[in-house]
Amino acid sequence: MSLLQALSPRAVAVLGASDNPIKAGGRPIDYMRRHGYAGRIFPINPNRSKVQGLPAYKGLQALPEAPDAVIISLAGEDVAAAIDDCVAVGAKAAVIYSSGFAELGDAGRARQADLVARARRGGLRLFGPNCQGVANFSSGAILNFSTMINESPPGDGPVAIVSQSGAGAAILYGGLRRAGIGVRYMVSTGNEADVCAAEAVRAVVEDENIRLVVLYVETLRQSVYLADAARLARERGITILAVKAGRTSAGQATASSHTGALAAEDALADAFLRQHGIPRLADFRELIDYAPLFLSQPAARGARVVSISNSGATCVLAADAAEEFGLAVEQFDAATLTGLKQALPSYVTARNPIDMTTALLGKPETFGDTLHALFGSGAADLVHVGFPIGGEGYDFADFAAQASRFAQDSGIPIAVSVNQDWVAQAFQAQGVPTFWSERAAMRGLALLAEKAAQAGMAAQPPAVPAPGAAAAATLDEPSSLARLQAAGLPVMHHAVATSEEQVRSAFGTLRAPLVAKGVSADLAHKSEHGLVRLNLREAQQAVQAFHDFAATLRNLGAQDGGLLLGAQHKADFELALGAHVDAEFGVAVMIGQGGVLVEVLKDVQFLVAPFGRTQALAAIRRLAIAPAFAAVRGMPAVELEPLADMMVRLGDWMLAQAGQVQSVDANPVLVARGAQAPVIVDAVVAVAQGGSV
Amino acid sequence: MSLLQALSPRAVAVLGASDNPIKAGGRPIDYMRRHGYAGRIFPINPNRSKVQGLPAYKGLQALPEAPDAVIISLAGEDVAAAIDDCVAVGAKAAVIYSSGFAELGDAGRARQADLVARARRGGLRLFGPNCQGVANFSSGAILNFSTMINESPPGDGPVAIVSQSGAGAAILYGGLRRAGIGVRYMVSTGNEADVCAAEAVRAVVEDENIRLVVLYVETLRQSVYLADAARLARERGITILAVKAGRTSAGQATASSHTGALAAEDALADAFLRQHGIPRLADFRELIDYAPLFLSQPAARGARVVSISNSGATCVLAADAAEEFGLAVEQFDAATLTGLKQALPSYVTARNPIDMTTALLGKPETFGDTLHALFGSGAADLVHVGFPIGGEGYDFADFAAQASRFAQDSGIPIAVSVNQDWVAQAFQAQGVPTFWSERAAMRGLALLAEKAAQAGMAAQPPAVPAPGAAAAATLDEPSSLARLQAAGLPVMHHAVATSEEQVRSAFGTLRAPLVAKGVSADLAHKSEHGLVRLNLREAQQAVQAFHDFAATLRNLGAQDGGLLLGAQHKADFELALGAHVDAEFGVAVMIGQGGVLVEVLKDVQFLVAPFGRTQALAAIRRLAIAPAFAAVRGMPAVELEPLADMMVRLGDWMLAQAGQVQSVDANPVLVARGAQAPVIVDAVVAVAQGGSV
Repeated sequence: MSLLQALSPRAVAVLGASDNPIKAGGRPIDYMRRHGYAGRIFPINPNRSKVQGLPAYKGLQALPEAPDAVIISLAGEDVAAAIDDCVAVGAKAAVIYSSGFAELGDAGRARQADLVARARRGGLRLFGPNCQGVANFSSGAILNFSTMINESPPGDGPVAIVSQSGAGAAILYGGLRRAGIGVRYMVSTGNEADVCAAEAVRAVVEDENIRLVVLYVETLRQSVYLADAARLARERGITILAVKAGRTSAGQATASSHTGALAAEDALADAFLRQHGIPRLADFRELIDYAPLFLSQPAARGARVVSISNSGATCVLAADAAEEFGLAVEQFDAATLTGLKQALPSYVTARNPIDMTTALLGKPETFGDTLHALFGSGAADLVHVGFPIGGEGYDFADFAAQASRFAQDSGIPIAVSVNQDWVAQAFQAQGVPTFWSERAAMRGLALLAEKAAQAGMAAQPPAVPAPGAAAAATLDEPSSLARLQAAGLPVMHHAVATSEEQVRSAFGTLRAPLVAKGVSADLAHKSEHGLVRLNLREAQQAVQAFHDFAATLRNLGAQDGGLLLGAQHKADFELALGAHVDAEFGVAVMIGQGGVLVEVLKDVQFLVAPFGRTQALAAIRRLAIAPAFAAVRGMPAVELEPLADMMVRLGDWMLAQAGQVQSVDANPVLVARGAQAPVIVDAVVAVAQGGSV
Repeated sequence: MSLLQALSPRAVAVLGASDNPIKAGGRPIDYMRRHGYAGRIFPINPNRSKVQGLPAYKGLQALPEAPDAVIISLAGEDVAAAIDDCVAVGAKAAVIYSSGFAELGDAGRARQADLVARARRGGLRLFGPNCQGVANFSSGAILNFSTMINESPPGDGPVAIVSQSGAGAAILYGGLRRAGIGVRYMVSTGNEADVCAAEAVRAVVEDENIRLVVLYVETLRQSVYLADAARLARERGITILAVKAGRTSAGQATASSHTGALAAEDALADAFLRQHGIPRLADFRELIDYAPLFLSQPAARGARVVSISNSGATCVLAADAAEEFGLAVEQFDAATLTGLKQALPSYVTARNPIDMTTALLGKPETFGDTLHALFGSGAADLVHVGFPIGGEGYDFADFAAQASRFAQDSGIPIAVSVNQDWVAQAFQAQGVPTFWSERAAMRGLALLAEKAAQAGMAAQPPAVPAPGAAAAATLDEPSSLARLQAAGLPVMHHAVATSEEQVRSAFGTLRAPLVAKGVSADLAHKSEHGLVRLNLREAQQAVQAFHDFAATLRNLGAQDGGLLLGAQHKADFELALGAHVDAEFGVAVMIGQGGVLVEVLKDVQFLVAPFGRTQALAAIRRLAIAPAFAAVRGMPAVELEPLADMMVRLGDWMLAQAGQVQSVDANPVLVARGAQAPVIVDAVVAVAQGGSV
């Protein structure tokens, strides 16, 4: 039985069934009966013969047929035995409401692992524990105790909700239903002992009627499922929108499931979502507000927006918002101007945004003519329409019909900003999405454009390592540089000397000025210990450094790997290039500004390997420092392709090492304007201990 | 008659009065009669004896008494004569609906200037032209033709709306009224021929019943009025919230009134608003959404927020939002923990955010006890409460009463995030502001904290120059450095030589390595012309540079000011320091990252002079590069005070020069970690031509 089938059980048993329809063990029974569930419902309650009018059973073994799914609404200590019973009768899925597991800490985590071990013996899939359950509003199989189902009655539709948080699922369900949007699935995954949100998304995109999945997670587990779901969604034209909470250090500290490298975890989730064409939204409100846009509007073809309004202030605010969210407000070419001038009265200037002033008053066809002119000229990838004030003389039903027809005929998405309920309703009645500000409408259009841009980039699933990676050993600088050189990455010309004679000999082979560094695998930051000297022009200076550094390392009790002499390179920028093997996402490659300042500047971008040059270039261009790479004041630009290629090569090489190399920290990477290639002048490579590389 | 009095006319004449109450010349008459205007209304219409049942007059001269205010709803070409009539009868204010003036370009601008000249002869104040008018909903003097007044009936209250845009005023009015908020004044200033938005704000804060002014401008004119309004508002505890549109280059290009230095214009407005404690919001929606918060909640005392929710997901999202908006989510100290542990059941962890889980179900007093514990311990400057899902067992009327009492008793602002209308209404009924997401609530609390932080800084009015500044002449580098040195700013040790002998002599007085530059007032960017050489260690190198540069300047046809030799300084950072005299704001001082890259990096901060060290330090800390100034990897921090003092001194000196010095561009300013003082190594000073400095 697939996970999608598990969401359509033919018979459901309820352990801990309650006669009271407002208790957790009573609600799903009440919901299923009231909302058309056609399968059989088996309340299990050893103390009652009937529950909510249905015959009650003493236990799962007493049932006349095996249930596909079992709700476990019992005290935490009774869950393990219930799982055994589920396995014994051949149930396929259990939905565990009970708490008292991983959310309580280590002891709870052990109890939770035990549940999974018991379930796996019989191929039983688990939702939860500590979850509000799952629901299929198409079949009426509502194995969920959210009160929101009473407040906003179900209506089947093209949306699936997947949320780690039960409250989150209910917020999304309530918000979407209040907006008149049909919801087919509501899956809350709770502690995710077995089924995680990623796998649930993979399941629901198999349903051909689903057009939109809204996802809430605090920890993105089993990302391979989500990568595959994204692939299938792209093929089928399904949109997945995600909120990944814990964006900030405060948020990460609050999401208690997080441990370890917090900032990287969120940055990797961010990169992963982007690489797989899953727009990342800020919160539940955004998921609810932008659902109608993604459900009703065609995919965007680009990021050029044309804005039309009857208010000059709206035109200014719309242009501000467009630039804020990365959309292009371009002026019209000659052909477009010709078309627009035919559509517009003489007193309206054909510039973008188009300020209609009073042109639409009593003359609604001007609106459609303007849209038609834009369509014909190819001037718009996206259209924003702002009607901040409607009043006498404006026929909004007509405008709405024209807007709807335009989006359908042209394949150009349209979003409308309004301030009055009745104006909003006129557009919504025609399926045209409305927003309460120019910024909200532009943000929506920008999300459409972002999704389209990402969909154009090939996204392969990550290669996630098997759990339990070996301990890592840090290589010294010469060994690290040698590894990277062997991997095809550019490293500085250098030589290592372990005797005064070797120092003199090495000095002759390199072009001064040189840098001298004390080599030791034990020290991460050489400059802090005075183990770096610059601008060496005489061999004697190198010999002096050799002796001084040896003494320093002796005093520090650190291993002495000799003296590294390297050619000094010209640099306009110091970058950092890194990679590591992440337990959830596999190989992650990082590029960042600042050399030794990388941690304080926090101007870094991640990519999950494998990825190509296009994605690497896009990541470099997302750096805050990127504008400085352009030609400026007569100085040539930094060539970005060699940098991008370094990132791609590092990612591919790390994948090929299959975990034997656990991390690379190449820092600084010296980058110069013009033709000079970037060069790694320091690096630390960590390898799996006992590894064979 | 003050401008505030002009908003309370005892008699109003309407030029172009219409019998049709939905026409611009008919609406204000209809509005005033229906909404309780107690003064006299004089319709002027030469073709009718009665207008809307009132006796009509042939002209202003025919009136039985002089009107205080006159609405001019005439064709543009008839306005000048109407202004003369207003002056002739002694009217105090005219509200000009008519268009056809500055919004049409130069010819219209001239016609508009003519209106002002005519009005000034008789002390007549003008609103508009091209405006929707003004309204006083306290007296019913509605000299405004917005249709929104029909859609949302007036209700007097503590808010004043001032907007350049008539649509903007109506959007704000409609939004505030729909939210049940009373509005006393609605002033749209249109083309601002005479009365600008800043002066209107200054007028309405004189009304002691006003608690909040919401302001929309595209161009901030006559900032001195707004500075004075901000001062009075601070004294009276009035909040001014502003939207300044044209934040981006796209928005600035759209706001057609803008010309010239666009980016600086917005950056200066931004600095000005911040320095005067006027929070800058993004759009009309934010002004409407945050009005209840500023109207109902006390001023913030700091930026430490405590968040409380019945949902774990809300706790994570709230922490994310708090950090996003610059609020501190601190953990509790021992005393607070003790208090909270008494208030909370054992299964709730006393950490911030506080996840109540099910603690409030059926036990509402736990909410108040928790708030009380926070109040007692001083742990919170701000409180966020998230009730994302309400259902059976939650008594929101009780929670709302407790929240309201808490804010009143403690003086700690509170904001609530919800997802259900009925939950929102329960809080709003007690005057507790609600928001539709954790982010929106946190953004509001952050605005309160920002306002409080800014209020603590002394803000003096800017010294705006008289119009028509003289043309500027650029000084060469030695003269520029000499000016700045005389102003007390640190410049590099240097000497200028105009003969080979002087070069050798100067070389001896400076400590090598030296930098050599060709001096010419004609060239802005010396390095682009090969007129800079670094690392000179021998006098002969300097002599060579002297001859080479002379040849280069000859070839360029540029004035030759000799050779500048300077001591090279160690630098960890290159900054840019600048100042200029702005027509609207007076002396503006800029600090920026990047030396020659300052334009591409766009990491700059402005301050309007005069300002103090605290404000300068805050500006430096707002730079994106600022985190790199901290101590890192064993390197000492950059001392910021000397930099801040340079900014203060430059601003004060520019003010003292009273426009004789028009701009300073000191770039780069070399900044090093540790005790080394920052030093200006290049500068261009522009002085007023014919000036005496």
